[in-house]
Amino acid sequence: MKRRMLGASALVALTASLAGGAISQAEAPRRAAVYTADGKLEFPKDYRTWVFLSSGVDMTYSDAAMAMAANNHAFDNVFVDRAAHDAFQKTGTWPDGSVFMLEVRRGETNGSINRRGQFQTGVLGREAHVKDKRFKSGWAFFGFSGEGPGREIPQTSDCNQCHEKHAAVDTTFVQFYPTLQAAAQANKTFSAAYLAAEKGAVK
Amino acid sequence: MKRRMLGASALVALTASLAGGAISQAEAPRRAAVYTADGKLEFPKDYRTWVFLSSGVDMTYSDAAMAMAANNHAFDNVFVDRAAHDAFQKTGTWPDGSVFMLEVRRGETNGSINRRGQFQTGVLGREAHVKDKRFKSGWAFFGFSGEGPGREIPQTSDCNQCHEKHAAVDTTFVQFYPTLQAAAQANKTFSAAYLAAEKGAVK
Repeated sequence: MKRRMLGASALVALTASLAGGAISQAEAPRRAAVYTADGKLEFPKDYRTWVFLSSGVDMTYSDAAMAMAANNHAFDNVFVDRAAHDAFQKTGTWPDGSVFMLEVRRGETNGSINRRGQFQTGVLGREAHVKDKRFKSGWAFFGFSGEGPGREIPQTSDCNQCHEKHAAVDTTFVQFYPTLQAAAQANKTFSAAYLAAEKGAVK
Repeated sequence: MKRRMLGASALVALTASLAGGAISQAEAPRRAAVYTADGKLEFPKDYRTWVFLSSGVDMTYSDAAMAMAANNHAFDNVFVDRAAHDAFQKTGTWPDGSVFMLEVRRGETNGSINRRGQFQTGVLGREAHVKDKRFKSGWAFFGFSGEGPGREIPQTSDCNQCHEKHAAVDTTFVQFYPTLQAAAQANKTFSAAYLAAEKGAVK
């Protein structure tokens, strides 16, 4: 898929505990990235309650990308686990274990009282991007079909190469996540390659 | 604004505590809707960590809406406080105190490696929709400029009338929030008017 891919990391899915204050022993922190014995990534069933980073529509990174037929639209929603998000807002980078979920949904124009533009309907696909020392590059993508465990996309994939080359911060497309940019700016974590490309871009 | 408006309700902004287990006395539940002495709504500074419901692009409900110039795009992101979301998933309706936030962001095509479609950039506007018995209709809209308290939009406004007439569930546009529809279906909370309109619509 030649649309927006993700970037990710989560030491723990402390969803509640970080924000909540007291933690009972029974509610021990849970990692967002949970692997099966054969190295697949468990589908994170609660990702829709993670922190929303942004949504794009019909984004493509290639001039040669197949032209979409009229009325064939797709949104990309990106979520990150809460612990990773909280860490990023403080440090401008992602802790080991961070998990991002990319959810692609069909966009439709005609429905209820809507007359133009698009709203989101059914899920077209889901992928995860995980920061973890267990991977050679420190990051890996996983593709899901349904809600079963997802298989790792090879480290040499287009996803990996594009993120390594073009991501604004720590292998993730912070250039498309407006609420993360202040933390990257404050912590000076924008990549040198990204800053150079922006400087050279015709504005 | 003739684009998507919100629908809302939150007994408490138990953001952490509901999910977190033990709650210390110092971390007492906090309502998502907090009013000033003169009846304005405090800007909910943490709304970007609430539950994301959906995002649309360039949605309009009126055939007569001003045609947008090419490259003039806007996304509508809708968030609801976590306690309200959790209640809706169980009951198919909103508890008193629920708060929805509508965030409108500019969509841009040209940036970094993107070639088509749109990604989100700066904030164009923000509104809240609150379910609270203190309002005549049980619901009210608030407009914010910046992060100060928001003023109530009159109960007779287009926002109120359109939500009362067309919203699929309890004054909110659940027809545009795909992750809420199963709970509405299971709890049979779709409004009679909405079901009748859908039945009559040419598919």
